[in-house]
Amino acid sequence: MSIRAVLFDVFGTLLDVHSIRARADELFPGQGMRLSQLWREKQLEYTRLRTIGSRYANFTQVTEDALQYACEALALPLDAAARGLLMHEYTQLSPHPDTVPALKRLQEHGVTIGILSNGDQALLEDVLHGAQLADYFDVLLSADQVHAFKPAPSLYELGPLTLKHPAHDLLHVSSNCWDAIGAKWYGYVTFWVNRGGAPVDRLSTAPDASGASLDEAVSFFLQQRKH
Amino acid sequence: MSIRAVLFDVFGTLLDVHSIRARADELFPGQGMRLSQLWREKQLEYTRLRTIGSRYANFTQVTEDALQYACEALALPLDAAARGLLMHEYTQLSPHPDTVPALKRLQEHGVTIGILSNGDQALLEDVLHGAQLADYFDVLLSADQVHAFKPAPSLYELGPLTLKHPAHDLLHVSSNCWDAIGAKWYGYVTFWVNRGGAPVDRLSTAPDASGASLDEAVSFFLQQRKH
Repeated sequence: MSIRAVLFDVFGTLLDVHSIRARADELFPGQGMRLSQLWREKQLEYTRLRTIGSRYANFTQVTEDALQYACEALALPLDAAARGLLMHEYTQLSPHPDTVPALKRLQEHGVTIGILSNGDQALLEDVLHGAQLADYFDVLLSADQVHAFKPAPSLYELGPLTLKHPAHDLLHVSSNCWDAIGAKWYGYVTFWVNRGGAPVDRLSTAPDASGASLDEAVSFFLQQRKH
Repeated sequence: MSIRAVLFDVFGTLLDVHSIRARADELFPGQGMRLSQLWREKQLEYTRLRTIGSRYANFTQVTEDALQYACEALALPLDAAARGLLMHEYTQLSPHPDTVPALKRLQEHGVTIGILSNGDQALLEDVLHGAQLADYFDVLLSADQVHAFKPAPSLYELGPLTLKHPAHDLLHVSSNCWDAIGAKWYGYVTFWVNRGGAPVDRLSTAPDASGASLDEAVSFFLQQRKH
């Protein structure tokens, strides 16, 4: 195995999607965690339903739809100002503490690094800029290019097409187990960053490797590269 | 509009998927509701991920995979006997109180009635037999025929193909809002049975009508038929 590049998932993997909790708690005291969780659940659900039904709308739209649903379900009054604040907060997500050290370590080894994400191009540029991560990446691959969300094969296919290496020479890193499995289904070498000690999803296939941090993903990459 | 037949979703719509709660509570005291909810969530998630990734496994398999995940996530020890009991319970789901009266009313009007479900044929026959509903239905349309789960267009397409009427002459009834919307995307007239007063899913399209019970769905059908 000779891995030529690393593609990272963004939401959940490099950035903490629950970092909006504090802002949500200011707007809706005591409800920040519930809102953050339901918002994320519905966001993922809507990406999948739209992909299966061939009714693509971009991730920003889906995220706003999910926010509106979540607030309605939790009986939280979401006026235009609150909606604007929370949607803006979504462009200002915090990186996980292990994100910058891992990217720096790969950069020091001269590794080609990219993004493979459900996010649309504008949102990706905003969040990576907001988190001061933009300079680390050689390529940004987005669901918007294929009008389908993960785990659509057409989205994973952007990696080999863009980087000119077969999927089995690319490492895909995600904190979402189902995303690591989706990439594995497509043919990538996959690393699951399992920060919370979750069980592996039961989808007949497992990620190639897993660990508790992005640092372990980088170590896995460097080991594999030696072979 | 002249609606020629009614197709029902099964799990959640005719049958109460949380009726396994009592059995789960016997096995894992105090945990029945949490297990029932997570089991259902993962079951739906797995149907969608497998459909997007073209990795079909039938609904019985997906249901067992979801059960195993849910028990692991909740740290509930699931031995082979408990697994067997809970999977058997899934073939013995209770009908909702409004199910039999609604089917009887349609039958009295001589309406063609069918099932359009994620369930595989064997599971559908088991659950309909278990709930004493089998005799009401003229057709059973199953994800197993197309190796894709809702909201896959190929699954909804079985209605028009089998019943020889265009989708806009068929009424699709589901308690799952996303399923009603998926059927609407395909072209059906759709009724959402919203027993719990949930918000409508925000997927750019809404069901044609909704109400709190299957009885209201039947009334909607009889009104539409008059036109």
